Amino acid sequence: MTVYARFRHDGQVACGIVEGDSVYPILGDMLGTHERTGARLALADVKLLAPIVPTKVHAVALNYRSHLGERPPLTVPGMFLKPGSCIVGPDDAIVLPADAGRVDYEGELVAVIGRTCRKVSVAEALDYVFGYTCGNDVSARDWQREDRQWWRAKGADTFGPIGPWIVTGLDPAALHLVTRVNGEVKQETGTDLLIFSVAQVVSFASQAMTLEAGDIIFTGTPGTTATARDGDVCEVEVSGIGVLRNPVRAE
Amino acid sequence: MTVYARFRHDGQVACGIVEGDSVYPILGDMLGTHERTGARLALADVKLLAPIVPTKVHAVALNYRSHLGERPPLTVPGMFLKPGSCIVGPDDAIVLPADAGRVDYEGELVAVIGRTCRKVSVAEALDYVFGYTCGNDVSARDWQREDRQWWRAKGADTFGPIGPWIVTGLDPAALHLVTRVNGEVKQETGTDLLIFSVAQVVSFASQAMTLEAGDIIFTGTPGTTATARDGDVCEVEVSGIGVLRNPVRAE
Repeated sequence: MTVYARFRHDGQVACGIVEGDSVYPILGDMLGTHERTGARLALADVKLLAPIVPTKVHAVALNYRSHLGERPPLTVPGMFLKPGSCIVGPDDAIVLPADAGRVDYEGELVAVIGRTCRKVSVAEALDYVFGYTCGNDVSARDWQREDRQWWRAKGADTFGPIGPWIVTGLDPAALHLVTRVNGEVKQETGTDLLIFSVAQVVSFASQAMTLEAGDIIFTGTPGTTATARDGDVCEVEVSGIGVLRNPVRAE
Repeated sequence: MTVYARFRHDGQVACGIVEGDSVYPILGDMLGTHERTGARLALADVKLLAPIVPTKVHAVALNYRSHLGERPPLTVPGMFLKPGSCIVGPDDAIVLPADAGRVDYEGELVAVIGRTCRKVSVAEALDYVFGYTCGNDVSARDWQREDRQWWRAKGADTFGPIGPWIVTGLDPAALHLVTRVNGEVKQETGTDLLIFSVAQVVSFASQAMTLEAGDIIFTGTPGTTATARDGDVCEVEVSGIGVLRNPVRAE
């Protein structure tokens, strides 16, 4: 298990390995060959950024029974795309668009693809996953209902917080996911309750399109989602990873 | 008016300016500051590639009255996202997925964003457009109808041919768009008939999300779309730009 962060320090953006209260900057490809520079920084002295600039951003709708309500389960994963421009990092503000109406939080486990793949089997799928982070698939419900597609409902600027870092070596079916708003638990599940497992989602998506190194996949949200208000602080916590915390403000 | 191409020559990928039968390679940022290297290549000696590796790919549904059929016009542009991994270039094969059922061609004018923008007015929108190319918004109709979102219906590998190059200085409302399959005209329109003009689409999309340098926008398809068959050759021609030609094969 290794913890990879992306951060700004002294005006420079770098990636590094987190151990305890320290970050060890790396040179090279975070997803591939890299080495420590020899430097050591205090975690408290860096500004954590979204842990990856994703190549593309996949997401899965309706992937926990607890989130379905009256809706029947889908027969295949309910994939959709979010734009890279919606991604923000830990402590970055989620900005509620003035004209969006209701906006909800969706706490999720996010998988990071480490190696390009196409048409992988379920059995091999996790070999292509580099690690996992926490994500918030922020969703504007009125746009989601009224627009023909979810391009802005799920894709407006700041609607894709991820972080605080990427952790390798986790079993994605053995994690605990909690979403808190202003300290109050709003969503909670074990990731063993995903209808389509991470391996199934990766395999399914890769049948139609190439999954590239640096793609990320929001895997679905459980339960009933909470509505965002100006001034909130939303936290998505996944056991073994950490807490993704974002303040919220009206545009 | 300048014609920018991206190409492979002697195993190297480069961008260049096309004049007559020649390509003049450039160094620097095609969308920004660049200069000619001094070299000159014969157009016939290079392999043209998709003229840009897009940052993200926007598209507009139902943007010509001739394509609406019985459907009422949308009140706002019917935006959606295609993944960057679906983009291919001139002469690259459109591959029909074995399990997709019916796949149609959609010939379109494609706008290339040259400078990052957010919340631009309609009046200013075209200042952020670098130029235009031809595109084919290949669409799997069964997936489009049955899936919750169009992620693979519009986003399977090879479903986004663009090219043959990008032309600057065009009036996007004064072009003629034709789609031919095996030489037979299947779609034809003036781009003055776009329901939402390029400026309106750019302005609208930028209200919700940052449009980045290198984003591209498929602006919509006219008339009745033709269904793809193994062995077809599909051509999308836009006056003032050129012909985007792609062979088609079954997976």
